[in-house]
Amino acid sequence: MSDSSLRHRIGKTTLTLRGPDRRALAEQVVTLAQRRHAFAFGNIGFDFVNLVGGPDPENAQPFGGTDSADLDRLGDLWLGLFNTATLPFYWGSYEPRRGAPDTERLTRTARWLADHGVTVKGHPLVWHTVQPPWLLGLDLDEVEALQRARIRDLVGGFAGLIDTWDAINEAVIMPVFANGDNAITDLARARGRIHMVRMAFEEARAANPTATLVLNDFDLSSAYECLIEGVLEAGVGIDAIGLQTHMHQGYRGEEYMHEMLDRFARYGLPLHLTETTLVSGHLMPAEIEDLNDYQIPQWPSTSEGEARQAEEIVRHYRSLLAHPAVESVNYWGLTDRGAWLGAPAGLVRADGSRKPAYDALEALIKGEWWLPPTPMRTDADGRVTVEGFLGDYTVSAGEHRAHFTLDAADSAATISVA
Amino acid sequence: MSDSSLRHRIGKTTLTLRGPDRRALAEQVVTLAQRRHAFAFGNIGFDFVNLVGGPDPENAQPFGGTDSADLDRLGDLWLGLFNTATLPFYWGSYEPRRGAPDTERLTRTARWLADHGVTVKGHPLVWHTVQPPWLLGLDLDEVEALQRARIRDLVGGFAGLIDTWDAINEAVIMPVFANGDNAITDLARARGRIHMVRMAFEEARAANPTATLVLNDFDLSSAYECLIEGVLEAGVGIDAIGLQTHMHQGYRGEEYMHEMLDRFARYGLPLHLTETTLVSGHLMPAEIEDLNDYQIPQWPSTSEGEARQAEEIVRHYRSLLAHPAVESVNYWGLTDRGAWLGAPAGLVRADGSRKPAYDALEALIKGEWWLPPTPMRTDADGRVTVEGFLGDYTVSAGEHRAHFTLDAADSAATISVA
Repeated sequence: MSDSSLRHRIGKTTLTLRGPDRRALAEQVVTLAQRRHAFAFGNIGFDFVNLVGGPDPENAQPFGGTDSADLDRLGDLWLGLFNTATLPFYWGSYEPRRGAPDTERLTRTARWLADHGVTVKGHPLVWHTVQPPWLLGLDLDEVEALQRARIRDLVGGFAGLIDTWDAINEAVIMPVFANGDNAITDLARARGRIHMVRMAFEEARAANPTATLVLNDFDLSSAYECLIEGVLEAGVGIDAIGLQTHMHQGYRGEEYMHEMLDRFARYGLPLHLTETTLVSGHLMPAEIEDLNDYQIPQWPSTSEGEARQAEEIVRHYRSLLAHPAVESVNYWGLTDRGAWLGAPAGLVRADGSRKPAYDALEALIKGEWWLPPTPMRTDADGRVTVEGFLGDYTVSAGEHRAHFTLDAADSAATISVA
Repeated sequence: MSDSSLRHRIGKTTLTLRGPDRRALAEQVVTLAQRRHAFAFGNIGFDFVNLVGGPDPENAQPFGGTDSADLDRLGDLWLGLFNTATLPFYWGSYEPRRGAPDTERLTRTARWLADHGVTVKGHPLVWHTVQPPWLLGLDLDEVEALQRARIRDLVGGFAGLIDTWDAINEAVIMPVFANGDNAITDLARARGRIHMVRMAFEEARAANPTATLVLNDFDLSSAYECLIEGVLEAGVGIDAIGLQTHMHQGYRGEEYMHEMLDRFARYGLPLHLTETTLVSGHLMPAEIEDLNDYQIPQWPSTSEGEARQAEEIVRHYRSLLAHPAVESVNYWGLTDRGAWLGAPAGLVRADGSRKPAYDALEALIKGEWWLPPTPMRTDADGRVTVEGFLGDYTVSAGEHRAHFTLDAADSAATISVA
């Protein structure tokens, strides 16, 4: 908490504590403890779909997930660091047969996560990759009608359980994507990027007016700025700008990140680091343009790579949290088992053991940036002052406990510990 | 004319010719001759500002021009190939002292060009480079008011003489341009690209409703597509998409050009190749990102480079004219003397002699794509059929002459040669 660059992440409050008898808890030792970060520390929860939701009857190819088989172990590792899970709703794997979406497994998975205090996010409503084969060859009006219906069904059907969505993914490249025929690229080429973005946001908004809807892209160049400006000019209501930072080709460094974040912070919208990765093995060659084009039989995690990944993940998270516009950081994968592109991008090895990056991130999220159960003494008026990362806390006196929240404004409150 | 890829450039008409006595000119030899291309073969006319308009009283730095001193010679070379001239209206050189614009010299120059049958275009109304120093430090509202007034004054004041303008130049990079402080970048950063584009087009349109207004950029990536889509969505009336292709780092080839032209042709607007160059010396290293950053004391034209330039300019112009959406090609400079970046990009050497590229381009524009005075025999009804590049033609019989135009639709006409 001594890091002044994180001042905006920290709150302070003076609590006046009263006991069950309504009298001040004067000169008593109470225990303060953080329970949850306000900041969204996220990761994908793709593994949980099979583990919690049940085996995939369609055996549809998962995308970017792992195939780890031990729910208890994986659950503990996952819940030890993260409070926000992204679940996969890729059209091609979610509805491989027309009219038979994978609703039940995803619902069970989302509910299990929510029951564990995790905020659940869906990804993505509109994208040109991982498309169902049955969509190809339909005319564009039908494709658009089906896409709109999918958005309404998902966002409306999951409302209350999933209230954050990547509304559209990678719209910058969408109409010119050339890595596989798909109906969505054809639609985007014919009707334009802004039409696609508007379609995604309008349908999702109508289905769940309070949802947080994210525009998400990997293209962080001026192209994305231009798209955002066009979309805002067109009056489309974006809740957050999603920025992917898959760094299989190497950590881009704090200076790059801050310059990039500043460019996108201009629009006054929250920034969501929706997809971030750092590998613990050799780097993907810089000349690869589409990361999906790099397929190798083995991409091992190495001890040198793990040390680098641990050092970089700390720098990366520190630098992201230092930027006031950043509202969430979502790491892309927990274990190397089944990881996207076969890359050793996990925080846990394929054998289930923690990498140094896991421990390093834990030392931030649940260490330096976290208030563990801490005894403090109230004053003669029953007051205690607490400072910590924004989030949910408890205060306990003996067997009694109360909840409070630290938010950005300095504050004072009187609460009953009963 | 046997090149089928240029079919859309060619028109055909059957003329029925009558003499001064209104009778058919039957079985007579008449002479047909092309006078002008409908296609805009352009070049900058910056040299003419000093030569025709008179010496620059402010000695403001010209930009992208030459300093050649012989109007007759330069004029003949220029008029031998081109029918459309771009004149410089860079704010910093046009109005180096606030309130004292270089109106008279530019008016004289434009009029001289128009008197020689040349269509004149102004460049650019809004840009972040070549800014007047007096604009720095003013507050943004005043900068915008001055920019708006400049647009109205120029477009309104030159209406009838200059009816084509690059309304805004390089808007993609405008808000993030970092190669020199300027008030326009500050304005664009604060108010957004679309605001800047709308400002340029709305002011210009109001000042000259019939003007052809061009959105011009060097960034031909998806960023420009996204900007165009946003601008069109915002309802801004663009007349043509300007595409710069300065190829100091080498000719990009037909395949690149056609893929690029196809991407921008999607918007259904004419494409203007506003700024194109090919050097006749060594190539600028590929790693230079901003061409302006490459400054060397000598950049000689070489015989090898001149042969390459001549071959490439023919391929380049053939490929551009083969694309039906392309409406103009504007080469950037006639002679190497004082050429932009000191590059040997001219079609004429610094000593005034023609390079092979000049001859090669002449062999297209005034050779293969041109109908020189050609005797033809009318039939018994006084008819003659003429096919040629779209444009203006004359037909002469003895001392009598008439004008006609070949346009895209096959046609027939009866004209009096009197």
